[in-house]
Amino acid sequence: MLSQVLKTIRKYRLFEPGDRVVLAVSGGPDSIALLYALKELNARLCLSFCVAHLDHNLRKNSARDRAFVEKAAGAEGLTFYCRTLDRKLIKETGHKEEALRRFRYDFLFSVAKKFRADKIVLAHHRDDQVETVLMRLLRGSGLYGMNAILPKRIIKGHVVVRPFLEVARADILGFLKKRRIGYVIDETNSEDRFLRNKIRNNLLPLLEKNYNPNIRETLSYFASSSGADYEFLSGLVEAFLKKNLKEKNRVLSLSLPSLAALDIALRRLVLRGVISRLKGDMRMITFKHAQEFEDLLFARPYFSEVHLPGRIVILKTKISVDFYISEKALI
Amino acid sequence: MLSQVLKTIRKYRLFEPGDRVVLAVSGGPDSIALLYALKELNARLCLSFCVAHLDHNLRKNSARDRAFVEKAAGAEGLTFYCRTLDRKLIKETGHKEEALRRFRYDFLFSVAKKFRADKIVLAHHRDDQVETVLMRLLRGSGLYGMNAILPKRIIKGHVVVRPFLEVARADILGFLKKRRIGYVIDETNSEDRFLRNKIRNNLLPLLEKNYNPNIRETLSYFASSSGADYEFLSGLVEAFLKKNLKEKNRVLSLSLPSLAALDIALRRLVLRGVISRLKGDMRMITFKHAQEFEDLLFARPYFSEVHLPGRIVILKTKISVDFYISEKALI
Repeated sequence: MLSQVLKTIRKYRLFEPGDRVVLAVSGGPDSIALLYALKELNARLCLSFCVAHLDHNLRKNSARDRAFVEKAAGAEGLTFYCRTLDRKLIKETGHKEEALRRFRYDFLFSVAKKFRADKIVLAHHRDDQVETVLMRLLRGSGLYGMNAILPKRIIKGHVVVRPFLEVARADILGFLKKRRIGYVIDETNSEDRFLRNKIRNNLLPLLEKNYNPNIRETLSYFASSSGADYEFLSGLVEAFLKKNLKEKNRVLSLSLPSLAALDIALRRLVLRGVISRLKGDMRMITFKHAQEFEDLLFARPYFSEVHLPGRIVILKTKISVDFYISEKALI
Repeated sequence: MLSQVLKTIRKYRLFEPGDRVVLAVSGGPDSIALLYALKELNARLCLSFCVAHLDHNLRKNSARDRAFVEKAAGAEGLTFYCRTLDRKLIKETGHKEEALRRFRYDFLFSVAKKFRADKIVLAHHRDDQVETVLMRLLRGSGLYGMNAILPKRIIKGHVVVRPFLEVARADILGFLKKRRIGYVIDETNSEDRFLRNKIRNNLLPLLEKNYNPNIRETLSYFASSSGADYEFLSGLVEAFLKKNLKEKNRVLSLSLPSLAALDIALRRLVLRGVISRLKGDMRMITFKHAQEFEDLLFARPYFSEVHLPGRIVILKTKISVDFYISEKALI
């Protein structure tokens, strides 16, 4: 396993010697293996670590997990950062999965700041990737969903890296077993859990047996290749938005001709970009909405509107397309 | 079904009034339905038809199928074009599936020329699309494979359109049943047949039952969205190749700096573009070869070579990357 981790680190240039890094450790097998693998490789990598643990506070034994990780970090002489989530706060913050995700990242970013870290390291591995790709494909997603998990990504100015992304789950478990390293049971708080488990336990073994014995590798390649395609298109779209998107009184506007001149592939991503700026996520926005948007631009009269989930209104005028959150439902 | 066909025709502007079109009719349910559906819609479409039938000559009853289609065309007063394949020729032409595909298109193009046709119409429907996407995904493919079947495409200067692409197979069979229209059994000569049937009869019903009741629609949207993304990227790559690719003595060359400056997503498609120019297809070329290509460009010394299936050699010099078919195996 370690050689594959090194290969991934080199291929995507995940670390520079001397980097200060935050390891996100839940205490489950993946993140515990991450801790010990990087420690073993550190003679070559020359990193300074700290360990960050978010106590989700959603299960009875979350304090036990916290103590476990704190002890492991202490035994390795690593600084340990921890935060316990406020259950009430999560309940108040709307969509639970989105809220947890945001809290997790906020916590990691705050640790990165305290530790003056160059990078945040997450333990996602190849099977996470493959399961995520299948999950998105089954639920409905375009290219942007296939771009499941990237080895290196900048989120709000923080570099997030995933050195396990080309390692199979089985190899991680083998590594832990061989070195007799213990871990706690990883119960990620995820609404995806049910579907993910079904994919992991039923669908993937079935595909492996009846369709392609290398399906995990195949889908992992697919994710990697689509990820690069999506990143490229996103770059073009971000440049377009930076140049063309105007904001005034909470209304985001694009000129109608500039939108109409775009290739449809880019226009679909522009729509996503504007919506995520307005409402912070893309939940409930589907391919059908993108089709409606096309219809609005090219087939409906001026001053037509399209209404999307999240109270989003898109208004076509003679010169512009305006996006805003409807006041009506806000009152 | 007819209203969906009209919708697809309008959305993708598949026909103009007065278009002369070639219908490719095998005699199976899909192409027979295509013939009768377009006939019914023709009060609005105002097309001039002819029927083209390729007798693959690979099964005993292929003459029966031919007679069936000829009779149907005659009953509708349509010009009927037919060609019977030479079995020997196919055997001599290497990879059977590729050869058949080429013969099919050559035949359709020659009919289009004789009929002075504006468009060639194929009967691929939504389930073909969905099965193809799954097949490519299971076998391994990047975005270019998800771009399974397009509603409109230009192949060697001929416009090929697919008005059934958003129609479900069940609706086609319903249309035929309601109008008591007969057809022959469609046995496409395809090496994909076995895998396609497994996907159709086992995998898709399972996904529908256990994962997503709308999986066909979901995957069809995915194909459509990825298709547009791929078309856009392909356009950029073709422009790049037109500007940068040099040919001399059967060696195709690109300058090393121009390749290195490309985004990885485009570079992968450039590799595909050059290889398909050299060997006519992309069989046996996988994601691993694209990775080797990256490695050659960025990590290996000058005058290193990469050898790909089909005797393709890629040579990196100080200023260029040269692609050619190795002479050695040709002697």
